[in-house]
Amino acid sequence: MKQTRITELFGIKYPIIQAGMIWTSGWRLASAASEHGCLGLIGAGSMKPELLREHIQKLRNYFKEKSISKPFGVNIPLIRGDVDELIKTVIEEKVEIVFSSAGNPKPHSKLLKLSGIKLVHVVASVKHALKAQDAGCDAVVAEGFEAGGHNGLDEITTMSLVPQVVDALTIPVIAAGGIADGRQIAAAFALGAEGVQIGTRFAASVEASSSNAFKNKIIEAADDSTRLVLKKLNPVRLFKNKFALDVIKAETEGASAEELEEILGRKREMKGIFEGDLDEGELEMGQSSGLVNEIKPVSEIIQKLLREFNGAVEKF
Amino acid sequence: MKQTRITELFGIKYPIIQAGMIWTSGWRLASAASEHGCLGLIGAGSMKPELLREHIQKLRNYFKEKSISKPFGVNIPLIRGDVDELIKTVIEEKVEIVFSSAGNPKPHSKLLKLSGIKLVHVVASVKHALKAQDAGCDAVVAEGFEAGGHNGLDEITTMSLVPQVVDALTIPVIAAGGIADGRQIAAAFALGAEGVQIGTRFAASVEASSSNAFKNKIIEAADDSTRLVLKKLNPVRLFKNKFALDVIKAETEGASAEELEEILGRKREMKGIFEGDLDEGELEMGQSSGLVNEIKPVSEIIQKLLREFNGAVEKF
Repeated sequence: MKQTRITELFGIKYPIIQAGMIWTSGWRLASAASEHGCLGLIGAGSMKPELLREHIQKLRNYFKEKSISKPFGVNIPLIRGDVDELIKTVIEEKVEIVFSSAGNPKPHSKLLKLSGIKLVHVVASVKHALKAQDAGCDAVVAEGFEAGGHNGLDEITTMSLVPQVVDALTIPVIAAGGIADGRQIAAAFALGAEGVQIGTRFAASVEASSSNAFKNKIIEAADDSTRLVLKKLNPVRLFKNKFALDVIKAETEGASAEELEEILGRKREMKGIFEGDLDEGELEMGQSSGLVNEIKPVSEIIQKLLREFNGAVEKF
Repeated sequence: MKQTRITELFGIKYPIIQAGMIWTSGWRLASAASEHGCLGLIGAGSMKPELLREHIQKLRNYFKEKSISKPFGVNIPLIRGDVDELIKTVIEEKVEIVFSSAGNPKPHSKLLKLSGIKLVHVVASVKHALKAQDAGCDAVVAEGFEAGGHNGLDEITTMSLVPQVVDALTIPVIAAGGIADGRQIAAAFALGAEGVQIGTRFAASVEASSSNAFKNKIIEAADDSTRLVLKKLNPVRLFKNKFALDVIKAETEGASAEELEEILGRKREMKGIFEGDLDEGELEMGQSSGLVNEIKPVSEIIQKLLREFNGAVEKF
């Protein structure tokens, strides 16, 4: 796989980022992705600052024991109430790479950059990509409508979004949304991306901290098994289980934001992803879950991605 | 651009199909696309059988005068009340290629195939792709959520849909949805497609029969200018003009199918696309409209697609 501004920026072998995913990408998944040549991200979205610190230290200890010297990063959702604490934690722990999402990077970018941190922001439209570039980000993730979990309001797909963001920016673009297969990595490069961020494929790995029940649901999913819901609150792509179907029904009948808040309640992600409550939990996964048919160790997933990528590129 | 089962099936130079589009792809657009090495389609969706016959004959006369011998096809939406009359017309006029959409090809495929017609059906999910293959289709168009005009119910994007359809079928797959640029043609091939179908880019051509007001709206559109609406009736992707925003508002408030029928009224597509009523008409276009910045003759559009494709492929 070719070297790009993204492999150079992070000092990684393959331009593949393992996405930060709540209840899924702790130190085990991130260390495995980084160890095998990608960039692993610890997902702080489901961690209090002290738990994040613990995961960072555990990853570092693991690398030390195995004499591994590889970069890794932390994903921080900026809408978190304790975002300043999370940022303080990554600075104190001398984390070198931060992927920010779900919010505006501007109020935080100066501090992060002054701390020597490489900053990448996740965007879902050209407008937000330009804002991230203006805020001093080193790169953006352009994430399409097909991505699992939280998503933009404009419903722009990876195929449409990536080339438009590439045309609008001078900083490098990482494509995300719908990518679970090496053919799609090749497609993302054809669109002008210099890296890809992959979530769902890595969520169905041995090293992911999510429940086996959730991982098996990714394996079970077909092309039409997910839906973007809760657009009046904060859009999120879910497997269409009982909870998601209840939400879809309420939305079809015109439920207000307040009524949806009521249905949503609290801790649905933990319930679904971590505890494996397949009926009442939120099962966040992307449309690419239809391409994922086996729970595998991260090393095997990466080898498979490379083989599929080479197969796709050879055909040109 | 490489030869595939799609170039072979139709006897065309480039594996590019100009989509059948209502009020847009009459004989002028279809003949221009076919003349310059692609497969042009006359869109019967906005034609009565006798008008379709006229367009087929005009295209043939034009080719005869210019001594051109190239294939072309007709797109027929199967939900039309007079679908049998349209099919009778293409058989009588000895049309060799039919693209069917919006319905089930099974009741019509035997007659079309017995008449020596090559049949391609447009699908938006793996399930419908398998049904089209079982019905005897020679190929399918796998069309993603980002496509303009009428669309599937499952909201599956081109990036996710194409490889899943390719894996499920033995017949060749044409990718559609979001493709307006040669980089995206390269991406579609990486995903395993053997051809692409392009709508919006060809709608903003000199030869398209749509109004200049509509074509200029395609030029004006940004990445976030369209929305898939009317999901309770028959989902359609529109530019977010006054009419579309009225529909979005009603849908957000939970409008029923009957209430949406009322708002929709009749002949909105003709009003918007053909007559250029930019407020009250339906302006069908895809998310790729954000990539279209100039109204050009078809020959120049095709040359640009080839240059962009080569630029994308050279980078591998």
